[in-house]
Order: sequence, then structure tokens, then C-alpha cells
Amino acid sequence: MRFLHTADWHIGKNLAGYDLLADQAATFKEIEQIALENKVDAVVIAGDLYDRSVPSEAAITELTHELMQLNLHDHLPLLVISGNHDSAIRLGVGRQWYQATDLFLNTDFAAAFKPVTIQDTQFFLLPYFGLQQVKNYFQDDSLRTLNSAMTAIVERMQENFAPNKQHVLVAHFYAAGSTRVQSDTQMEIGGLSAVDTSIMVPFDYVALGHLHSRNALKEDRVRYSGSPMKFSAGEANLEKGVWIVDTDSWQIDWHPLKPVHQLIVLTESFAKLTDPQFAKQYAKDDYYVIKLTDRQVIPDVMSRLREYYPQIISLERKNGFQTPHSKVDRKAATEDPFDLLQQFYEESANNPLSPMQEKWAQAALKQAQKEE
Amino acid sequence: MRFLHTADWHIGKNLAGYDLLADQAATFKEIEQIALENKVDAVVIAGDLYDRSVPSEAAITELTHELMQLNLHDHLPLLVISGNHDSAIRLGVGRQWYQATDLFLNTDFAAAFKPVTIQDTQFFLLPYFGLQQVKNYFQDDSLRTLNSAMTAIVERMQENFAPNKQHVLVAHFYAAGSTRVQSDTQMEIGGLSAVDTSIMVPFDYVALGHLHSRNALKEDRVRYSGSPMKFSAGEANLEKGVWIVDTDSWQIDWHPLKPVHQLIVLTESFAKLTDPQFAKQYAKDDYYVIKLTDRQVIPDVMSRLREYYPQIISLERKNGFQTPHSKVDRKAATEDPFDLLQQFYEESANNPLSPMQEKWAQAALKQAQKEE
Repeated sequence: MRFLHTADWHIGKNLAGYDLLADQAATFKEIEQIALENKVDAVVIAGDLYDRSVPSEAAITELTHELMQLNLHDHLPLLVISGNHDSAIRLGVGRQWYQATDLFLNTDFAAAFKPVTIQDTQFFLLPYFGLQQVKNYFQDDSLRTLNSAMTAIVERMQENFAPNKQHVLVAHFYAAGSTRVQSDTQMEIGGLSAVDTSIMVPFDYVALGHLHSRNALKEDRVRYSGSPMKFSAGEANLEKGVWIVDTDSWQIDWHPLKPVHQLIVLTESFAKLTDPQFAKQYAKDDYYVIKLTDRQVIPDVMSRLREYYPQIISLERKNGFQTPHSKVDRKAATEDPFDLLQQFYEESANNPLSPMQEKWAQAALKQAQKEE
Repeated sequence: MRFLHTADWHIGKNLAGYDLLADQAATFKEIEQIALENKVDAVVIAGDLYDRSVPSEAAITELTHELMQLNLHDHLPLLVISGNHDSAIRLGVGRQWYQATDLFLNTDFAAAFKPVTIQDTQFFLLPYFGLQQVKNYFQDDSLRTLNSAMTAIVERMQENFAPNKQHVLVAHFYAAGSTRVQSDTQMEIGGLSAVDTSIMVPFDYVALGHLHSRNALKEDRVRYSGSPMKFSAGEANLEKGVWIVDTDSWQIDWHPLKPVHQLIVLTESFAKLTDPQFAKQYAKDDYYVIKLTDRQVIPDVMSRLREYYPQIISLERKNGFQTPHSKVDRKAATEDPFDLLQQFYEESANNPLSPMQEKWAQAALKQAQKEE
């Protein structure tokens, strides 16, 4: 059989305040197209379908449409698990009914051991889990590490291996040997430690979600698909796409996705960036990570850059500031307290103020000036 | 055919801070039992399944279990609409899949005109709607009142009437002639004005949700089931239950539900209420609405009453206070600022401080005293 492996859709995510829903909808259509053109027998989505445990109504509408399109319109079986960004309970609503049309959505740890069989392949759907769930399930408090837990899980799954079938694990965690990128690291807060890939050797293929780069692991049969879109500055240079896995030939092909909007890193001086000749080669609706080579304080830097690059998601100083000992060089800085604040925030947070933060800051300053 | 008519489950509601989920689960079992004993062919739930547009995970787990039990376990067709308390989008997730097992959940105004036929009866499932949705659907800005909108809706539905079938409307709004009770009124904020029952004459039966009393209307074939539980002081004396409607004989029978815990109104003096002989006839786990006949300020009144009636959901002064001109009579009151605050809140809000509010108040007072 042939299946498509994707993960980490993060429907409803915004990029430094910019709504990605339209781009996500377009990217979904690309994925659907690849699935149909390659006549896959199933689509695997390995967790983090939503970006938040309580997604917005708009995000719910979009994801529901996507699942309907694949499952009810295209009649594709789906093999889906919840990730650490999903609420297992919220995402899981309806799953008991979805099975009737071969939408297999597992958000329940205890249900991971009963495989879903499609043609020659058994799929084990292991949702994102916490160590305590494993201890409870096995009634074994000695399972204190993720590796011991995962060893117990795989052994229990093996009891249900049909010998004449292929065995695929769908899971969502950080596997050992992976190279992390920025937005993954943010995800790791409070998350799990690494799982050793050797534990997963009994499987013919492991379809992973969690890390956003397909290059995070260097294993032939244990793979991350990565996210279908770039969700952080650290992903700017990654190629995004999906795997198509053929279980007869074990041919595993990469199908790149064309980004709807680019995420571009520009490492330049302020003068260069604001030179109209230079700037005009860059599309206004792409996303920009700007690394300024200047070291001096530049008044109103963000607004001036946004004239040319309206969608800046991050602003850094490649070479730091002129006066590394003082947080804000009061002499070099303009007298305008808003510029000072902006500069200070940028320096401390390594990010510019968002448009909303700018508004708040200006309102607060106005208030403070009134009170003076 | 025979169907059960219920509405306004408000799963996840709390009563002045007390979690009702266990009582709601028990009440559901009673409803299920009535459905099974009476061998109904379908169950109608006329809106407000949840109490909030973003229900808690616990509420989601409970409602999903209830719908599974009726539909997947008992194999009962369900006819369900969203009410004003539900988010149509959040509640509606999965509905496209639910139809396969005859769970007809409609949260989409435009889908209300295509009836669901079960045996001899066509059910029109009209979710809670806003006037603008009707204007948009009919592309008619002249539909400025709820009555004109409802007239257009019913006419459009009649176009799909099969002449040899019975016609049932399932809807969620305030119908004219209804007598409102307290918790309905709270619901009405920002809600719809009244629909004239005469508009609904083309239907053989109208199964309504929204008002919590089955006595809200005095029509034979346009009925509220009311909520299955008492959700406010105003509902203390209502009998709760469900209708069982037989479309062959048009026999419509009331099946009362036994409350898991009573909601009792006590109109007495403080001395009487705290007389152990008097108090011992009242169960500690029931809910109490207390109307004190005393007019003087009583220090620490709530804590002292809670010794006997731990679950007080509302505390009122039947005859007002001694000094109606001053908000708090400082001379009569104790010197303790917490008692003063409690008294003041009770008098202004017509409700006692909740246990959480008490905690906050005491923490704030402690802080204030420190600062002094």
C-alpha cells in the first residue's frame, strides 16, 4: 500500500501576530493534490493538527473542512493522532463516529495498542502522552524514563503484530539524534525528553510528528515529515513537504510543498535595507527575519523597516549594540521615550514590538505623560 | 412513531459555584432509562446542550459520553440543534460524520430546510439563529422582526412538507405567551424577542428549547420540555421532566425526572434556620435559596448558615434591611471589615460571596491591613 506522511499542521497558528489561516488552507490543497496524484491509500497526520488546545472557531472550521475533504469527499482513510499542542479531549470529539468512514483519530493512550489494518499494513496510533499515563496503564511505577516507557509500549504493541503484515507506528515525540529548530524548542517546554530510535526497530516505518524539520533524524525508517509550512525564523531555510511511503517496495519519496509566502532572512545594514533599489526585489507579502548589521541605535527602526517589509516577524542585531554594558545608551538614543522603549524591548527580547504591543506602549506612555 | 422531547441540558453548568456535572450525569441516566422503557424511536434535544460556547474538557467528555450512549450504544436516532448557549461551530464538529448512525445534529441555519424523515415523521431542525442570518439566507433586508423572519422560515419549510407525513419543528427561541423564570431571563440578554406561536400552526408538533419550564406555554402542540434540572432559584418549585410524543395517536405524556439533589427555598428567621432541631430535617447536600425574614445586620451570616446548609446558592432579605437609606449600617455592624464587606456585597448583589470570593476578599483585606 502507499500512504502520505505529514504532521504538525498547527492550524490556527499565527506568525508573530500574522494570521496564517489562508496560507494553511492553500497548503492543505497542495497536500491533498499530492495525495490524489500519487493515488495513496491513506493519509497519516502525526499530531499537532491545531496550534492550541482551545482552537479558535475559524481554526476549527478550517481543520474540519480539511478532514471532510480528505475523508468524506476524497474517500481517503485517515490515520491521525493528537500532538502536544492539541487537547486530546477537544480534538477527540466525534472520533467514535469517524471510524465508520475510515477516519481513525486516536487521542486515547489506551487505544494505541489495537492496530488499524489497511491492506497489508498495521498502523499503531500512539497519541502524545505523559509518563504518568504510561505508569497508570501498565500499573508500573518503575517506568521513570521515556525510554523505559516506550520500550514497554512497543513490547505491548508487538503482541498485536500480525506476522504477515507490515507494521507502522504513528507517534508524536522528540526522538534521539534529532536536530531541533527554534519553534520546536519552544514546544519542548514542559514536554518530553528524547526517545531512542533503536527502541522502534520492530516497526517497518515510524511516522513521526513534533519536530518541524524532515532532517531532524538520519534514520531510514524512522522519519519526521516536518511541518508543511515554516513556522519560525529557524525554519527559514528548510524545505517543507510530505513523505510518500510505499510499503511494497519500501520506496520513500519526498514531495516538496511550494510555500504560499516565503520566509526570508535578510542580514544587512539599515541603509541597505531601506535603499529602494535593494528593497524592491522583495515582495511585500512575504515574511521577513531581519538581522541588522548596524550597532548604533536607530530611532523608530521598526516602522521605517516596515515601510519596505510590512511583515517582519523578527528583528535582531547581528553584531549587538554599540554599548553592550548599558542596556540602552541614553546619549546615543533619541530623546523620544517611545524610541527608547522600542530599542530596549528589541534589545532585551531579541524581537521587535508587535503592532499591538506598539499600541499598548504608546497608550501607556501617553498616560504616563499626562500624569507627569 | 414515538419520540422523547428534551432540551436545555446545559452540561457543565455550575450552580452559584457548585459543580453539577455528577448530577447531570445521573439525570442523563434517568432520561436514557425513560427513552428505553418507552421504546421511543428517536430522541429530540432542542438546544443548549452545553452551558457555555467554550465548554470545559470535563463537560465535553460528559456530553460526548451521553450522545455515544444514546446513539452508538442504544442505537437511538437523535435529532439535535444548537441553542444560544452553544457555539454552533464548536458543538457542530463531527456532525457530517454523525449522520451515518442517525445522529442528526444541525447547527447550520441553511440546513434547517431539508427535513430528516424517521418513519411517518419529518423533522425540521432549526438551530438558534440571529436575524441577520435569516436576512442573508433569504436575501431580504425587510425581515426586520423575528415574526417576519419566522414566517419566511416556516413557508420555506412547508415547500418541503411531504403531504403523507407528520411535521415536527425542533427549535430554540422564546415563543410568545411564555412565562419566564429567572435563569431564562439571564439567557435572554442579547437574545431574540418572542415568536408568535400562531406562525407555527402548519406543524403537527413544535419541540422547543430555551425556556426552562414546561409550563411556559399553554399550547397543545407547541411545547417546551424545560430543562431536566433546576438551574436557578426561580426554578425551585418547577417539576422537571421530558415529553414523550406519539405521532400516531398524538398522545403527549409527561415523564417527571427525580432530582438528584433538591433545590429548596427557605423563608425563615436566622434564629429558626440555625436551630439544630429545625435544620436537621434538611439534607446537607441539597441546594438552598435562603430568604431571611430578619432586618438587622447579622455578623458572619453566610458562614453561620453554611454550618447547617453547606450549599447555599442565594441569600436574600425578604423584608429588606433595618436602615434602607444607608448601604451599610456602620453602627449596627460589627467592627470586623470582612463582615462589613460581606454584608455590603450581600445587600448590593442580592447574593452571598462565593467561597472563592470570600478567599479573595480575605486575602485583599489581609494585604490592606499589612499596608496600613
